[in-house]
Amino acid sequence: MSKARLMYLPLGGAGEIGMNCYVYGYGPADAERLIVVDLGVTFPDMDGTPGVDLILPDISWLAARKSQIEAIFITHGHEDHVGAVGHLYERLGAPIYARAFTANLARRKMSEHGFSDKTVKTVGKWPETVKVGPFEVGFVPISHSIPESSGLVIDSKGGRIIHTGDFKIDVEPGIGEPFDYDLWASLGKDGVKALVCDSTNVFSREEGRSESTVGPEIEKFLINAKGMVAATTFASNVSRVRTIALAAERAGRSVCLLGRSMRRMVEAATEVGILNDFPHVIPPEEVGNLPRENVLLLVTGSQGERRAASAQLANGKYMGITMREGDTFLFSSKTIPGNEKGVIHIMNQFSELGVDVVDDSSGGLYHVSGHANRPDLDTMRDLIKPQTLIPMHGEHRHLREHVNIGEAAGVQGVLAVNGMMVDLSGNKAKVVEHIETGRMYLDGSVKVGQFDGVVRDRIRMALNGHVIVTLIIDENGDPMGDPWCEIMGLPKQGRNNAPLVDVLEEDLSQFLGRANDRTLADDEKLEKELRTIARKTAYSEIGKKPEVTVVISRLA
Amino acid sequence: MSKARLMYLPLGGAGEIGMNCYVYGYGPADAERLIVVDLGVTFPDMDGTPGVDLILPDISWLAARKSQIEAIFITHGHEDHVGAVGHLYERLGAPIYARAFTANLARRKMSEHGFSDKTVKTVGKWPETVKVGPFEVGFVPISHSIPESSGLVIDSKGGRIIHTGDFKIDVEPGIGEPFDYDLWASLGKDGVKALVCDSTNVFSREEGRSESTVGPEIEKFLINAKGMVAATTFASNVSRVRTIALAAERAGRSVCLLGRSMRRMVEAATEVGILNDFPHVIPPEEVGNLPRENVLLLVTGSQGERRAASAQLANGKYMGITMREGDTFLFSSKTIPGNEKGVIHIMNQFSELGVDVVDDSSGGLYHVSGHANRPDLDTMRDLIKPQTLIPMHGEHRHLREHVNIGEAAGVQGVLAVNGMMVDLSGNKAKVVEHIETGRMYLDGSVKVGQFDGVVRDRIRMALNGHVIVTLIIDENGDPMGDPWCEIMGLPKQGRNNAPLVDVLEEDLSQFLGRANDRTLADDEKLEKELRTIARKTAYSEIGKKPEVTVVISRLA
Repeated sequence: MSKARLMYLPLGGAGEIGMNCYVYGYGPADAERLIVVDLGVTFPDMDGTPGVDLILPDISWLAARKSQIEAIFITHGHEDHVGAVGHLYERLGAPIYARAFTANLARRKMSEHGFSDKTVKTVGKWPETVKVGPFEVGFVPISHSIPESSGLVIDSKGGRIIHTGDFKIDVEPGIGEPFDYDLWASLGKDGVKALVCDSTNVFSREEGRSESTVGPEIEKFLINAKGMVAATTFASNVSRVRTIALAAERAGRSVCLLGRSMRRMVEAATEVGILNDFPHVIPPEEVGNLPRENVLLLVTGSQGERRAASAQLANGKYMGITMREGDTFLFSSKTIPGNEKGVIHIMNQFSELGVDVVDDSSGGLYHVSGHANRPDLDTMRDLIKPQTLIPMHGEHRHLREHVNIGEAAGVQGVLAVNGMMVDLSGNKAKVVEHIETGRMYLDGSVKVGQFDGVVRDRIRMALNGHVIVTLIIDENGDPMGDPWCEIMGLPKQGRNNAPLVDVLEEDLSQFLGRANDRTLADDEKLEKELRTIARKTAYSEIGKKPEVTVVISRLA
Repeated sequence: MSKARLMYLPLGGAGEIGMNCYVYGYGPADAERLIVVDLGVTFPDMDGTPGVDLILPDISWLAARKSQIEAIFITHGHEDHVGAVGHLYERLGAPIYARAFTANLARRKMSEHGFSDKTVKTVGKWPETVKVGPFEVGFVPISHSIPESSGLVIDSKGGRIIHTGDFKIDVEPGIGEPFDYDLWASLGKDGVKALVCDSTNVFSREEGRSESTVGPEIEKFLINAKGMVAATTFASNVSRVRTIALAAERAGRSVCLLGRSMRRMVEAATEVGILNDFPHVIPPEEVGNLPRENVLLLVTGSQGERRAASAQLANGKYMGITMREGDTFLFSSKTIPGNEKGVIHIMNQFSELGVDVVDDSSGGLYHVSGHANRPDLDTMRDLIKPQTLIPMHGEHRHLREHVNIGEAAGVQGVLAVNGMMVDLSGNKAKVVEHIETGRMYLDGSVKVGQFDGVVRDRIRMALNGHVIVTLIIDENGDPMGDPWCEIMGLPKQGRNNAPLVDVLEEDLSQFLGRANDRTLADDEKLEKELRTIARKTAYSEIGKKPEVTVVISRLA
């Protein structure tokens, strides 16, 4: 039997922001016992994944080693960490461990997929640990933008790994435990093999600011605002939701929650006992009974999502509430790259209603990030003093920069993107293998591979339009009448001022008149020729080469 | 004859950034003599306009009044001001006036569309003016991010209008005339009816910075950089191109221009005499002969454009030049909203090559905006002292904010978006009419209306996929064999683990077996039924309702 090794393999989240999924293994090479940390999703867009509903990590490598998997650990309840549990559980089959709030969210997802509540096990915080195979894993509370986020201590005979999860350093996080410098330093005091560390904000050079700085600014803002105010943030950022609600209460405004996830998150956090000072909320029907300057709406849709409460308010009305001249809309949030257009659209709709919009561009008074900035990453590394720094959760440029700042401080780093297996056994961590990895698309109810061609064909139809050519060949092998063309997503008329389909049919007919029997008898050849002509004619008529589907029917 | 009126009508650029097109009229209502200021384009994206090549203003209103149009004035050479001249000239037919550098660019566009050089007339700068119909128009030099930008003085018996064009206030612009406070104040001293003013940067609260601040920073940067440096900016920002090249020269680096538009702009600016101190440039072949720390590449593609020099360098190689570990790539530019993903993609590719990337996030040391910030807009308004402020070139939120800051300073404002005709004749400007306006899409070689359904169908195919159902009905009116299905952009297999097309064909067949003669005889009805069944079956199989094209062939 070969010597046991300790290994790390990111399958999602390393080389991208979102879709986190990391594997750790201990045991003989290629027969390690495995644990999975996080099973997240990422979101599709029209540019690259039109029509797709959700993007999941490709876990084929893991699924092929199902029997080696001891457990799945979820660091916190954001979709890019927990969103795939229901979709991928069947192929993994190992128990899921999380702290109470996260377990609550995970169970809801599992039950939507018909799995029992028991698949998810609630774990207390460090120093409580879970023993699974060769691993002993503990959840260490850490501040982030959702309650009960945790870093993981992953112990095995191969040494200690600290996996930070997403985090920031905040000694006044509003909800949950303040960052505990002594505790984190104590985790590192007997030596840490590897610090696997969040990299999202490595390019932010200032020290991160505390959640506690936001409340007083929002309170001032709400006192000065004249009319009704609506504020938006991620509903899962329960601490921010609470910050805003408490500021509203102090500013003499009643709070109304709009948007299903906003109401649900406040309920869930209250139920599990982490939120116990939330002010009384009023239902939407009562908003109209109050003076506008005594109302604060707390609404979903900070990223400009089309169906969220923010978008509907911007569109004119939501749950009977309308915003108007003199009111203000506050983004207590940051726009995620790619969502700018949606957010700007809402801002302009509010502008048309006469509603003032205030966002984070005013120096970040009303929002702080949930991720550790560069100086905070330095602090974490200094506290843990790891043998190796492995940056995770970041695009390539974030991981690279994070390795660089670590090495500048004398800590060796490994830049490992999705699919790079790192052997942590020796004195110097190294990439030992490249695993095929990628993405799966949830498309309607079907999972589609990234390279199956489905999405590629959609993009092609969107860019080029689609021509359908149908042709009937009779019993003698001769074309029966003319070919018939239909178009979709193409201009009806081109250069000749005649209908495009007529010109196409004319050119295709002429070709058929010239075609010999061998061509007419060969479906594949005929199809290819018809496609080529259709594309050529279209190009000359409308300056585009469309996608062409040829349907040949042969009468028997 | 009714009394003459002075009117303003934006057809593009008011309520959006880009696609500038403004109309001024003087004369009896509905029979005014007209001038057009700028004929710009805007750019398509996958989200809303997949496959479209260029977006033009809908000038139907103008085209229907072709005989009333005296002239077209182009304020400067950016695509969103001059890009549509060639595409729309035929429908307008009036002479085009511009200053030399802009005229040069406009002529190139006109000749690409087969129009004579003489359609574009070069005008000298203020106090030179052009008399067209009831108007006398002068080009007043103003600083912006392209040479020879001009504000327009538009005089008529109705009073003076000042149309700023895009501008910033810069007393050391590098190329061109410094902003002349006295001159601008003098334009306003006899009273100005309306200041029609750029609004793009109204949300930037700091005074704008001069182009002259960029050079020393870039020079420092280039001296400290170890390897080869590539810098990108808009090629049309000739002053910035010059700033970077001169900084390179001072830092001991030879300059190599990469990308067609970069070379062309430097040539054009040199030819018309506005650029006369550009350092010697070396051809790409010579780059390899120099030590890397003695090279500066000046490259196209600041917005992450896929085929630009920057993207090709990021991809590995361009014109025989490769960048590598130790080199640096500098964005001397701002990412336009919507282009973030493309830019980030390039950054990550460079990261994979080991190339450091520096962008504007470092406090704007290496880039300054070409637009007037809020304090500069205040300055302009204070210099001109107009009766009315009409914000232009901005989204709704920019125009509204601009009106607000004007009114806070005691100047009445009019918020007019595209299609709103403003009567400037009386003491209080007011919106008097709403014109149907919008966008035209240049799609291949065809112009398509915004609401023609072409783009809508493409988006639907991209989101939902496309099913083609073909059916042959024989001479007796009976289905001949089974219907045949083809799919594009859909998963091959669904819930039943059978090919999707087989399940579709099966369900359609069953329906045909049940269908009565009346249905079979009615193309429209049959098509509708087949479509409904195909969508329903697809939904149950794959959870999506695809677009369906039904082709029924009837044998005579």
